[in-house]
Amino acid sequence: MIKEDDVITFWIDMKRTYLIKVKKGKKFGSDKGAINLDSIIGLEYGSEVTLSTGNKAYVLKPSLIDIYNGLKRPSQVLYPKDVAYMIYSSGIQPGDIVLEAGTGSGFLTISLAYYLGEKGRVITYDIRQDMQEIAKKNIELLNLTDRVTFKLKDVREGFEESNVDAIFLDMPDPWNVAKHAYDALKPSGSIVIFVPTTNQIEKVGIALKNSGFIDIHAEELILREYQIKENATRPKNIGVMHTGYIIRGRKSLKSST
Amino acid sequence: MIKEDDVITFWIDMKRTYLIKVKKGKKFGSDKGAINLDSIIGLEYGSEVTLSTGNKAYVLKPSLIDIYNGLKRPSQVLYPKDVAYMIYSSGIQPGDIVLEAGTGSGFLTISLAYYLGEKGRVITYDIRQDMQEIAKKNIELLNLTDRVTFKLKDVREGFEESNVDAIFLDMPDPWNVAKHAYDALKPSGSIVIFVPTTNQIEKVGIALKNSGFIDIHAEELILREYQIKENATRPKNIGVMHTGYIIRGRKSLKSST
Amino acid sequence: MIKEDDVITFWIDMKRTYLIKVKKGKKFGSDKGAINLDSIIGLEYGSEVTLSTGNKAYVLKPSLIDIYNGLKRPSQVLYPKDVAYMIYSSGIQPGDIVLEAGTGSGFLTISLAYYLGEKGRVITYDIRQDMQEIAKKNIELLNLTDRVTFKLKDVREGFEESNVDAIFLDMPDPWNVAKHAYDALKPSGSIVIFVPTTNQIEKVGIALKNSGFIDIHAEELILREYQIKENATRPKNIGVMHTGYIIRGRKSLKSST
Amino acid sequence: MIKEDDVITFWIDMKRTYLIKVKKGKKFGSDKGAINLDSIIGLEYGSEVTLSTGNKAYVLKPSLIDIYNGLKRPSQVLYPKDVAYMIYSSGIQPGDIVLEAGTGSGFLTISLAYYLGEKGRVITYDIRQDMQEIAKKNIELLNLTDRVTFKLKDVREGFEESNVDAIFLDMPDPWNVAKHAYDALKPSGSIVIFVPTTNQIEKVGIALKNSGFIDIHAEELILREYQIKENATRPKNIGVMHTGYIIRGRKSLKSST
Repeated sequence: MIKEDDVITFWIDMKRTYLIKVKKGKKFGSDKGAINLDSIIGLEYGSEVTLSTGNKAYVLKPSLIDIYNGLKRPSQVLYPKDVAYMIYSSGIQPGDIVLEAGTGSGFLTISLAYYLGEKGRVITYDIRQDMQEIAKKNIELLNLTDRVTFKLKDVREGFEESNVDAIFLDMPDPWNVAKHAYDALKPSGSIVIFVPTTNQIEKVGIALKNSGFIDIHAEELILREYQIKENATRPKNIGVMHTGYIIRGRKSLKSST
Repeated sequence: MIKEDDVITFWIDMKRTYLIKVKKGKKFGSDKGAINLDSIIGLEYGSEVTLSTGNKAYVLKPSLIDIYNGLKRPSQVLYPKDVAYMIYSSGIQPGDIVLEAGTGSGFLTISLAYYLGEKGRVITYDIRQDMQEIAKKNIELLNLTDRVTFKLKDVREGFEESNVDAIFLDMPDPWNVAKHAYDALKPSGSIVIFVPTTNQIEKVGIALKNSGFIDIHAEELILREYQIKENATRPKNIGVMHTGYIIRGRKSLKSST
Repeated sequence: MIKEDDVITFWIDMKRTYLIKVKKGKKFGSDKGAINLDSIIGLEYGSEVTLSTGNKAYVLKPSLIDIYNGLKRPSQVLYPKDVAYMIYSSGIQPGDIVLEAGTGSGFLTISLAYYLGEKGRVITYDIRQDMQEIAKKNIELLNLTDRVTFKLKDVREGFEESNVDAIFLDMPDPWNVAKHAYDALKPSGSIVIFVPTTNQIEKVGIALKNSGFIDIHAEELILREYQIKENATRPKNIGVMHTGYIIRGRKSLKSST
Repeated sequence: MIKEDDVITFWIDMKRTYLIKVKKGKKFGSDKGAINLDSIIGLEYGSEVTLSTGNKAYVLKPSLIDIYNGLKRPSQVLYPKDVAYMIYSSGIQPGDIVLEAGTGSGFLTISLAYYLGEKGRVITYDIRQDMQEIAKKNIELLNLTDRVTFKLKDVREGFEESNVDAIFLDMPDPWNVAKHAYDALKPSGSIVIFVPTTNQIEKVGIALKNSGFIDIHAEELILREYQIKENATRPKNIGVMHTGYIIRGRKSLKSST
C-alpha cells in the first residue's frame, strides 16, 4: 500500500514514466493530465488512476530502470544494460562490501545498494563534493542511506579499506588506480571498470595485468530495442549505438617473478 | 580458506577455466598439467599453485560467469549477458520470491538464488524430470538447495503460487502462460521472458498486452568481446551474434473495459 | 573544372554538406555564411572558397553518399550501407540491364545507374506518379536520364521485360512479386529485396524458395560511425540502430518435382 | 552458355559452393557426389545437374561473393560487406582509374576491376612478390588481366601515378602513405582505408586530416546473417563479430595556413 513519502513510479505511457515522492497536498502534472497525490495514498501498487483529462495512469513500485529514467543526474550516468552486466560479472552477492569511484550522480551506487541488500555496504568515493551532494539526495530519496558511505577523496591516492569483495571504477584514468584497487581487494575479488573510449581499453587492460589481476576481459554491450506491432515488429530505428566498454579482472596472489 | 567439498574455480588461462569440487585424494588433470586436490585444501582464494608441468594456475571463488562456463548442462542455457539484464530489469531484490519456468539445466535458477540471498526463494517449474534432476544436482553442488523449490508441472496449466515478486519464463510458448503469470504475480510485479526467434517477440508482446501487463519492452543484447593487446586492441573476430530477445512487462490492475 | 549547371557538393563541415546546382547569378546561403555561385564557375573540384563570413568551404564532385544526403526525398530512402551491399551482392556489372520496384525517390535508381555506366539500363517501376515525378527530377539533376526508363505500373501484375540481369525490390509485399521476378530474370540472375520488419524476412524467403530461387540469404547490416579524436576515439553515441533486412537469391532452372 | 575454360559457380547447397574452371575431361568431386565437367559444357547458366549420387546441383555465373568464397587466398582478404561499402563510398564509376595497396590475394582488386568495367584501370601495389603472383593468377582466372596493372613497390616511398580517381589502402601502416596518396589523387578524389584495430582508426584519421583531406569518416559494418525457417526465423548464432574499420576522406585543395 502506498504511503506518504513513498517514492513511486507514475506510469502514463512508454514515454511518460515519472519517479515521484508522494506528498499530501501536492499535485502532479503532465501534458497528459494532472492528479492530486492525496488520491494515491492508500492505493495498492499496480493500481490504475484517472488523470484530470480522463487519461489513465498506473502507480508502480520503482524498478532500477525507472530509477535510471527518473533520477536527478547532472552528469552522464551508466546505462542499465552496463550496470546489470558489471554487477553480475563481478560475482557479488547480498551482504558483500564493495568500493566504488567515482560516485557521480549515484546511479551505480543505488544499483549496488539494491543488490547487496540490508547487510551489504557500498563505500563510494568522489573528488567532487557537489556531485556527492546530489548522489546523497538520490540515495536518501530511495531510503538506501544505511547501505552507503560517502567519501570525498581522490582514489588515485589509495582506498582506506581492505579486503573488500569488489571494486567498481567509472572515472577518467582508472589505470592510475589499478594498484590501489589490488591492495584494497580480497584475493579472488573482482575489479570492474567502465570506460567510454577505445584507447582506454588497452590502457586499463595492461594496467590490470601489471598489477596482479588475472582473468581479464574487455567487453561491450549493444542493446537494441524492438517495436512490437502486429506484422511490423522490428528494431527501433534510432538508438544508443555506444555507451562504453567494461573491463574486469580478478585479484590473484601471484608470486612475484 | 578452501575446505574439502568447496566448489572452486580452477583458472589456468582464459581458455582453461574449470569449476571443480575439492575432494581429498582426487587429482585434477588438463593438457596444461595436473594437480593433486589435497594441495589446494587450506589455501586462500586467489592463491597461485604449480601444476605437474611447472605451469601456474589459480584457485578462485566461483563467479556466476565461472558457473556458466563450468556447469553441467545438457540443454542450451541462457547467456550471462541475458541473465544479468533479465534479473536487473525485473526489479527484484534480496529476499524476494520469484517463479521460473522452465528450469532447464538450472543456470537462471542459480543466478536468481545468488541475487535473492538467504531469505529469497526461487520456485522453478519444468515438465521434464530428467532436466530437473540435473538442475537439482547443479544447485546442490553450489549449496543453494535451501533457496530453491522444484516443481514438476506444466505451467500452461497455471502456477500454484500467488503474490510473487517476479516471474521468469524461458520456454517455447510463453504466450500460453501470460494469463497464469498475471494471476500469480503481485501487482506491479515483473514478468521477464526470453525467446530465441523473431516471430516470438510479437506473439509474446501481444499476449502480455492482452493479459493486463503494461510497460512492455522487447530488447536484445549483443555482447562483443575485445582482445587486449598492445597496439592491436580490437573486437574478437568470431563470436556469438545472437542468443535471443528479452521481453518484459509489469502487472497493472487495469479496470476491465 | 566546374561549369554552369553542374551539380556539386558544397562542403562546409561534416554537418553542412549540400548538393547544389551551379547557376549564374544565384547565391548560396547557410548559417555559416553565403557565397555567390558565379565565383565557383571555373574552379577545379576540391577547391577552397571563402564564405561571406570568412569561413572556408570546399567544392567537391558529388559522391553517392553526398547524393544520399542532399537528395530531395519525400519518402524514406534506402541507406548507402544497404544500397552498397545490395548492388555488390547482386553481381551486376557495367552494361547490365536491371529492374527495380518501387522507384520511390530514386536513390537506388541513381546508385544503380552510376554503377551500370553508360551502357547499362535501369527500368524502374512504381505505382505512384507523384513519386516518379520526384525521382525523374532527381535523375535529370544528375544527368542520368539516358540510363533510366520509368514505368508507372504495378509489378504485382508482372514485369514487361525478360532476361534481365538482376531485379531489386523495395516495396511492402515483395512476396507477391517473386514469381514475376523469376519470369523476368535471366537464369542465374539475382533478385535482391529490402524489407524493414522481421516477419517479412520469412515471407520473402519462403516465397523465393517456392518460386525457383536458390542460394537464398537474409542479412542485415549495422553501421557504426566513429568519432576520431586524439585519445578519445569511440563510436558515436546515438545512431541508426536499424534500417532493414536484405534478402537475395538466384534464379535456378530447377526441374519441377 | 557455358564453354570450356569458363569459371563457374558450382552450387550444391548453402555450404557447398565452389568456384571451378570448366575443363574437358576433368571431374569435380565433393562429399555430396561427383560430376564430369564435360557434361556442363553447353549448358545454360542456372541449369540443374545431377551428381553421381543423385543429388542435384546448379551451375551459376560467379558473383563477387562466390569469388570471395572460392578464391585462392593464403592471406586474410577483405570481406564482401566491407569491399561493397569501400567501393560505394569512394564515389568511383565505370571507367575510373584507381590505385590500391597492398594487393594481397587480389580480392579487392577483382572487385574494383568488376565495377570499373572495361575502360577502368586498377593499379595495384604490393611489396611481396609471392602474394602478387597469387593475385595475378586469381585475376587471370577471372579474365580481368586487361584491367589490372601490378607493381612491386613499397608505396611508403610514393605512388608513380597522379590524378587518379581514388586510392584504396589495406596495409599495416597506412598513415605513412597519407601524404603520397594526397599527391597521387585528383582533387576531390577519395581515399578509402581499411584497418583491423581500434588504435589505427585514430592514427589514420589524424594523418588524413594533417595531409589535406576533408570529409573524414570512420565507420564499421557489422553483418548479421539470418536463418530463414518457418516460425523460427532468427539471426544465426555464431558469426563474424569484427572485421575492421573503414576510414575515408577526400582530397581538398586547402590553402596552406
